[in-house]
Amino acid sequence: MSGGLEEILSKSSRLMATRGFHGTTMRDLASETRRSLAGLYHYFRSKEELLYLINTQGFTTLTEAWKTIAGEFRSPREKLYAFVYLHVTYFSEHMHEMRVMTWGTQEMRLDRAQVIRDLKEQYLRFAHEVVAAMRAAEGNRDMDEQQIWRETYLLFGMMNWIPSWHSTREHGTVGQLVDDIYRTFVSGISRAGHDEVDLVRLRSRMRELYADVKPVTTWPEADGRSIT
Amino acid sequence: MSGGLEEILSKSSRLMATRGFHGTTMRDLASETRRSLAGLYHYFRSKEELLYLINTQGFTTLTEAWKTIAGEFRSPREKLYAFVYLHVTYFSEHMHEMRVMTWGTQEMRLDRAQVIRDLKEQYLRFAHEVVAAMRAAEGNRDMDEQQIWRETYLLFGMMNWIPSWHSTREHGTVGQLVDDIYRTFVSGISRAGHDEVDLVRLRSRMRELYADVKPVTTWPEADGRSIT
Repeated sequence: MSGGLEEILSKSSRLMATRGFHGTTMRDLASETRRSLAGLYHYFRSKEELLYLINTQGFTTLTEAWKTIAGEFRSPREKLYAFVYLHVTYFSEHMHEMRVMTWGTQEMRLDRAQVIRDLKEQYLRFAHEVVAAMRAAEGNRDMDEQQIWRETYLLFGMMNWIPSWHSTREHGTVGQLVDDIYRTFVSGISRAGHDEVDLVRLRSRMRELYADVKPVTTWPEADGRSIT
Repeated sequence: MSGGLEEILSKSSRLMATRGFHGTTMRDLASETRRSLAGLYHYFRSKEELLYLINTQGFTTLTEAWKTIAGEFRSPREKLYAFVYLHVTYFSEHMHEMRVMTWGTQEMRLDRAQVIRDLKEQYLRFAHEVVAAMRAAEGNRDMDEQQIWRETYLLFGMMNWIPSWHSTREHGTVGQLVDDIYRTFVSGISRAGHDEVDLVRLRSRMRELYADVKPVTTWPEADGRSIT
């Protein structure tokens, strides 16, 4: 049944991303996913629970994938490249889910909102670790925690703003974006050389690792109910 | 009456940013701005026209301010700093307008949508010029147009993502953000020294120039109607 859940979350995200949370009904979702209302209720009881499932799947998939991938790289710069690759590639393939996830937890039941905030915080902390390690390795003297958090969020800004402007035809591929974000974040646009890291090798290694990243379809439920 | 328009756009943005476009009625807006419906109709006939006015005001104010400020700085790096300062400071003071402006032109009448797209494109081109000039001055060999556009949008990503995470108490001041964005974009986080530009002097000069930036309240109307 897990293929069922994945497909339902994907199609539901697409519809909700277009019509908005309040502009979508359970009936619309049933029609879009070609299920009966009763069939859909097997997966979630309300739009609020759907929102929770989309967020859980996204953040669980990314944190689980990162736990595996992070261990494959040793240098802070390589880890940074890998993080950018994972985040940007995953969301370029799940743009509607991403759109829905940026709405936050406002519409969610309090206990579920808390689960999502915890997942999100863990994921943010992974990024923060990568940035802090890079700054430490570069011998930066001023390890101001607030500044490292600001820089971590600037990195997310570059990555998360992509859907509001990027078209492959006009602006190039997702792979070029990953490289640009990595390079800009590491050494800015003013230096021509970024040869310290072998991007060609890194990119092909990440392509291999990314091939194993599949959306997670089982996770502990906030209310103990299993859904798969 | 221009004070009236400014106040109305500001209060209306705040309400719409919270409730959403479809969740706000003309009656809600009249109540929020303490006007009669007839009084509000003097400024705009519909939510659609309000959206147009908020966008026009924002983009006109920024492009007009930039035309003045750009002339005050000579080096590409100084211009970059000034652009980041203007954009981030203006939107930190007009967060609700910014939120509304990120909704785009989907809900607008076609002729008005076109006016906004033109204004926005002009503003984007200003940023693109700044980035291109910086790359040229740094002697970057690869002046790939697509890449310069990608980098321009990455800069906007760092700036426009701010509202979704920043709190002054947790992450420091808007001024620190401006410095971090400038530094990250110019030379990345891996170099400790960014002493080529005198940030202290630049910041105080921009503070002076920014004091003269006031939201524009008159502009040519799409339908020739004057509103001030």
